[in-house]
Amino acid sequence: MINAYAASKPRGTLEPYAYDPGELGRDQIEITVEHCGICHSDLSMLNNDWGMSGYPLVPGHEIVGTVAAVGGDVSYLTVGQQVGAGWHAGYCMTCGECLQGDHNLCADGIAMIAGHPVHQGGFADKVRVQATAAIALPAQLDKRTAGPLFCGGVTVYNPLVQFDVKPWHRVGVIGIGGLGHLALQFCKAWGCEVTAFTSKPDKRDELLALGATDTLDSTNADALADAAGKFDLLLSTVNVTLNWSAYLGTLSPRGRLHFVGGALEPMNISAMQLIGTQLTLSGSPVGSPATIADMLEFAARHGIAPQTEHYPLSDVNAALDHLRSGKARYRVVLDM
Amino acid sequence: MINAYAASKPRGTLEPYAYDPGELGRDQIEITVEHCGICHSDLSMLNNDWGMSGYPLVPGHEIVGTVAAVGGDVSYLTVGQQVGAGWHAGYCMTCGECLQGDHNLCADGIAMIAGHPVHQGGFADKVRVQATAAIALPAQLDKRTAGPLFCGGVTVYNPLVQFDVKPWHRVGVIGIGGLGHLALQFCKAWGCEVTAFTSKPDKRDELLALGATDTLDSTNADALADAAGKFDLLLSTVNVTLNWSAYLGTLSPRGRLHFVGGALEPMNISAMQLIGTQLTLSGSPVGSPATIADMLEFAARHGIAPQTEHYPLSDVNAALDHLRSGKARYRVVLDM
Repeated sequence: MINAYAASKPRGTLEPYAYDPGELGRDQIEITVEHCGICHSDLSMLNNDWGMSGYPLVPGHEIVGTVAAVGGDVSYLTVGQQVGAGWHAGYCMTCGECLQGDHNLCADGIAMIAGHPVHQGGFADKVRVQATAAIALPAQLDKRTAGPLFCGGVTVYNPLVQFDVKPWHRVGVIGIGGLGHLALQFCKAWGCEVTAFTSKPDKRDELLALGATDTLDSTNADALADAAGKFDLLLSTVNVTLNWSAYLGTLSPRGRLHFVGGALEPMNISAMQLIGTQLTLSGSPVGSPATIADMLEFAARHGIAPQTEHYPLSDVNAALDHLRSGKARYRVVLDM
Repeated sequence: MINAYAASKPRGTLEPYAYDPGELGRDQIEITVEHCGICHSDLSMLNNDWGMSGYPLVPGHEIVGTVAAVGGDVSYLTVGQQVGAGWHAGYCMTCGECLQGDHNLCADGIAMIAGHPVHQGGFADKVRVQATAAIALPAQLDKRTAGPLFCGGVTVYNPLVQFDVKPWHRVGVIGIGGLGHLALQFCKAWGCEVTAFTSKPDKRDELLALGATDTLDSTNADALADAAGKFDLLLSTVNVTLNWSAYLGTLSPRGRLHFVGGALEPMNISAMQLIGTQLTLSGSPVGSPATIADMLEFAARHGIAPQTEHYPLSDVNAALDHLRSGKARYRVVLDM
């Protein structure tokens, strides 16, 4: 049996929940969970904000732990090895996206905390994943804080790879929370000038320490206007609707406004606004296994680490409340 | 004096208009206009739809003609040479965009039919442009039909270059008019599978003859739904608002909906719709001098030519009415 914490209904409190995961699949591994970050999408899934949640639901998809068992076909991971896993618990491995290395875009991928039946996540003593979805943790990374790299980290790292961001580029990061504080670190290590857009200007010193070259008060329309034409890339981590038309004005020709968080409401942007200076709007989800592995190595090389606050698994509801309060600095991690 | 046709006010009828262009600039050439295509943006400028028109206004920015005179600093074009010019009559030549070869994104570029004072266009016996904005016409191209390549042609060719469209890609072209009928030809020559989205299914045979692999009735919601996940690129040439959310559904993972025509109204698209499968929305205007030159050579190599209907310059108002009627097949050209 796997001992976990689950919600039995949308917005429900998490309660102890034990389930039998059955026989280990030949392509699977079982991980003894040691740490698991809490991502905003755990809250979205708990709330059924995206209409794709099933219950009981064990959240948790920023998992670090030790390989406890390997399936019969798994040769490249071994029992006792330190690994992590993120949004995906598996991929179809045969579609065009998987075969091109874009497993994170696989339409038949197994989400860690969704599906029919629900794949249960990492707020638990153990979790099962397809071996491909587990990535070895470099020895230089601190396993206590590394969990958030597997979802939040790769989500902000992947666009730098996908869109060929250059070290000489000027990047703006919108929203400095769990994802944004990692984006600042990655962009700095990438060589970029990076501006932290924040509605909390009192955080400036903290943001500079994380790697920001400068901060911009996103509540100040004059500050946005002063940044006209400045940025090659705006990376938005927020899931609320901002005045995106005004943000477009801060892009240089060929600039990109990229969403890794996003609201369901339409953006107030017209096609004509994109044409004149060849602007782009785009979005992307997490990253592929190969990109996660590269990202972990890059993080190790540059000393990039999530700033974490820790709760024992038994205090998971308090941990979730802390995240809901908006006061997490910057990522909440459960210790098993 | 230059003898032209100009409108004296928004939506005004064009009347004969003569103006003195002054001394030829050292970096300029004067072109004896032989043919000039009529683009929808001539209508938009005549109507002051974009709030940037000045009057009197001589439209016309799909110009083919002969070099009549060259300024003192112009060494690479010679009197008597066949050339053409498009949306731009000049560039600043010193900004980052110009220096990177993206002259078409120059914020201080001189539009052929805008500016303060208004730069007057090609509905005239002569026109002046900066030499950089004039591109030599390959001998294999028919000067009678080549004008529309200089604006409409490069506008649909440029995205194939900018976004690294591959010959194995599947492209949908939305709106088969002046731009769209050229897009079909370019995409076919590029090696792509190309689907013509059209609201006039009776044009199917004509569209297949232009290079379409298939047609899709854009007024049929089922046809859109059947094309789910099919296209790597949708190239929209229309300037009306369609159900863009539905069109997004026809994109494959990493797909792009690109606008070369666009309405001023907001699109009904949310950031969340872009994230799941890494979709992109983008726009672009015309192309750089280097891209125009490459496009002309590519058109010559592949026998790509605008399908044109011809009017004498003296019938310019009838020609404009024909374009307004939506019945042009596919580009109206004035013969001087």
